[in-house]
Amino acid sequence: MGRLLLLAFLMFGAATPVPPALRAFSSLHLSNSFSSRPAVAMKYSIHYIQQKVDHFGFNTDKTFKQRYLIADTHWRKDGGSILFYTGNEGDIIWFCNNTGFMWDVAEELKAMLVFAEHRYYGESLPFGAHSFKDSRHLNFLTSEQALADFAELIRHLKRKIPGTENQPVIALGGSYGGMLAAWFRMKYPHMVVGALASSAPIWHFENLVPCGVFMKTVTKDFRESGPNCSETIRRSWDAINRLARKGTGLHWLSEALHLCTPLTNSQDVQRLKDWISETWVNLAMVDYPYESDFLQPLPAWPIKVVCQYLKNPNVSDSLLVQNIFQALNVYYNYSGQARCLNISETATSSLGALGWSYQACTEMVMPFCSNGIDDMFEPNSWDLKEFSDDCFRQWGVRPRPYWITTVYGGKNISSHTNIIFSNGELDPWSGGGVTKNVTDTLVAIVIPKGAHHLDLRANTAFDPTTVLLARSLEVRYMKQWIKDFYASLRRKH
Amino acid sequence: MGRLLLLAFLMFGAATPVPPALRAFSSLHLSNSFSSRPAVAMKYSIHYIQQKVDHFGFNTDKTFKQRYLIADTHWRKDGGSILFYTGNEGDIIWFCNNTGFMWDVAEELKAMLVFAEHRYYGESLPFGAHSFKDSRHLNFLTSEQALADFAELIRHLKRKIPGTENQPVIALGGSYGGMLAAWFRMKYPHMVVGALASSAPIWHFENLVPCGVFMKTVTKDFRESGPNCSETIRRSWDAINRLARKGTGLHWLSEALHLCTPLTNSQDVQRLKDWISETWVNLAMVDYPYESDFLQPLPAWPIKVVCQYLKNPNVSDSLLVQNIFQALNVYYNYSGQARCLNISETATSSLGALGWSYQACTEMVMPFCSNGIDDMFEPNSWDLKEFSDDCFRQWGVRPRPYWITTVYGGKNISSHTNIIFSNGELDPWSGGGVTKNVTDTLVAIVIPKGAHHLDLRANTAFDPTTVLLARSLEVRYMKQWIKDFYASLRRKH
Repeated sequence: MGRLLLLAFLMFGAATPVPPALRAFSSLHLSNSFSSRPAVAMKYSIHYIQQKVDHFGFNTDKTFKQRYLIADTHWRKDGGSILFYTGNEGDIIWFCNNTGFMWDVAEELKAMLVFAEHRYYGESLPFGAHSFKDSRHLNFLTSEQALADFAELIRHLKRKIPGTENQPVIALGGSYGGMLAAWFRMKYPHMVVGALASSAPIWHFENLVPCGVFMKTVTKDFRESGPNCSETIRRSWDAINRLARKGTGLHWLSEALHLCTPLTNSQDVQRLKDWISETWVNLAMVDYPYESDFLQPLPAWPIKVVCQYLKNPNVSDSLLVQNIFQALNVYYNYSGQARCLNISETATSSLGALGWSYQACTEMVMPFCSNGIDDMFEPNSWDLKEFSDDCFRQWGVRPRPYWITTVYGGKNISSHTNIIFSNGELDPWSGGGVTKNVTDTLVAIVIPKGAHHLDLRANTAFDPTTVLLARSLEVRYMKQWIKDFYASLRRKH
Repeated sequence: MGRLLLLAFLMFGAATPVPPALRAFSSLHLSNSFSSRPAVAMKYSIHYIQQKVDHFGFNTDKTFKQRYLIADTHWRKDGGSILFYTGNEGDIIWFCNNTGFMWDVAEELKAMLVFAEHRYYGESLPFGAHSFKDSRHLNFLTSEQALADFAELIRHLKRKIPGTENQPVIALGGSYGGMLAAWFRMKYPHMVVGALASSAPIWHFENLVPCGVFMKTVTKDFRESGPNCSETIRRSWDAINRLARKGTGLHWLSEALHLCTPLTNSQDVQRLKDWISETWVNLAMVDYPYESDFLQPLPAWPIKVVCQYLKNPNVSDSLLVQNIFQALNVYYNYSGQARCLNISETATSSLGALGWSYQACTEMVMPFCSNGIDDMFEPNSWDLKEFSDDCFRQWGVRPRPYWITTVYGGKNISSHTNIIFSNGELDPWSGGGVTKNVTDTLVAIVIPKGAHHLDLRANTAFDPTTVLLARSLEVRYMKQWIKDFYASLRRKH
């Protein structure tokens, strides 16, 4: 599998499951040092709902338990609301802990918070341990089934919890979860009065946007974070190639980069370059203004830190690679604990990644490419045929690259209403997102200095003004939707 | 299976497939005697598109051929439009022949007519002769899959036929096809600029309307079509019951009603009453102002004719039953060719009926009931448990009565736009339809003196003014949608 496929399977930042140990640290983070105001206690209860494995067929009546969380500290029966997180490809507790925005606004909106786990992720496995066994078991892992789960869950809550039945629900989500929030409002507008879709690249399909837009943004982030930074990275690929071709080159590279497992052949070199590329991509997603631990423990503005090691492209190949190592070390060893770097250890080896790889091979076909000119990466074209063959080898299924636009409308979405599309300008996913108002009620919020769904994260003292403004605008829209809902309710009675 | 189930499986008038012989007669009808103006030639070409059997899962890549018809005589590349019939539960050629409205307005709207056959009906069988074999083969017979077929077809046409790519598409349908037209606009608003949903009982689900509304309207039609007519029918059930209990009662009833197969037990008597009830129901649906052959060859205003035999409820049981026979004879023997009446021969024994029975047992769960007070039928309550058990016996599936409202919104549809809901006041299905404006762009047109989707039928000299007005209003809305589409297109360029 070449780099092309790796990129195609690229997970959203928010998507990457984090080991339990880091999760604890994550909660810690949200509730103290980085917070600009008293900690918001994240108190939630865990629940399960019996869901049909197949909402769209009647041959099987099988069900599974979908997990969801409820936090109702600030919820008010009188004039309250429900903020519904449309969970994406990972453990819902992790999303809950990393969506501080919802916790921050709960009191103001008198809101109950609901976090719904996406089927095939976390504990919500339709066939338990067999869920990823083969394409037959994976058949029910689609965005449509996930949206139907959300609809059933909302219906269930409104029947089960007195006081919720006449309250407005707002969908919120980031990344793939942001797509789901937007699509949920489009397909089930009777269920939610509006949606906040943060960093949701709903247009990163077919040829709606250029396939190179993603890598171009990554490159821009590096270019603007330090002198010669992107140029240094651009030159690093050939430096690695030249060194690899030398007699003891693989050995030298393995030593210089402190790799846990030495490189032994040219395939390893390709894997090395893929892994380095993914590191730069991940950094672009999590280029947050404060110390954070989203994908890895990282310093504030990590790309700036990285770029301090990448100031000079005009050095020898060996020095260039040594500088790259220093840069990589910022990402992989901020804690100072790592003894070596493991290029086969990516965040995508967990269950969540497995599911996403299947989704990328079926519905979520996002074309990526690079040309080395507009971006700092080695040239790679988008080859659907090759991609499809790889998918068939891995999963026994072939992608339907046109389906998402057929079912969700592509760029032709103007008949929908009440969706906020927010995007950080630093976020490589913003290129596939909605960054201009489509109509008065399909609005775009662009956040300069914002990385991947920064707006959904908790308030901190280090937040740039841009994201504070974005959040307050988002709250204003949500309040308006809630107000409109109650006004319309009063007209009916 | 009692009458309850029979009613629950009740087919829409438009739905009932008609034998080929009648079909020819149908074309004849539309193109001559009853027409108020020169015949509109129904010239169409027949096409097939390869569709995925399962749009919502990737385990199978199986495809089948969906049939569709195109009539482009009046279509114009410059400023034209596409009228797209969302086919329902039957042979698409029959719907094509019975939707004269589209043919009548084609020239005015410069429209291409497209008639898409619904999967599992007509020739569009996903598994050929095995399509109805078992619940595994029937698994892909749902409204959601049908809508996805329509979306794929429109996308296909726009790519295949030069000139269509920038033209507005309008969905049209009657009865279940009307539901599909409305739901298609709701779920795929990027595909169609609006929908004309004629006689579409989208609210005949769960408890959105009283379950007795259907039989109440049937009764009203009979009550208003002749003195004592409904009262006579109301008394007929007990008359039949009393006669059946007599020594030679079954024999006498069989003779008096000219039944092809004599009644032999009490179950037969129940089947007889079910069959008679269904006859009155069908008459209410096709109470058209002119001779027609929709379900059977019938005179103009057939209920009036029927009621001429049902003027006196205060006669002996035997005379009452003899009068009932005369009334039934109008429906089953208008041509004068029938030698006896066959109570097991209902229109619902064909393939289309088989598919509908499955749909009624899964998604399309429409509660029916009667109480003998507000209606002229024997009391029958709606018993979901019994219904579900019957479905399980017949198909091995159980209904999900709540699903349609979950997925399509029930009464909470106000965020959608550009749907016309038309209903005839005589039509028993109108009780489950939208008969009041929901918003400015979700409009209701009620047609006094109109039976089941009369507005979709061809113009005739016998049409009441009410339906002429309805049709011209419908055209006005459609023209507005087309105009808005082109205005928005111009703004983009």
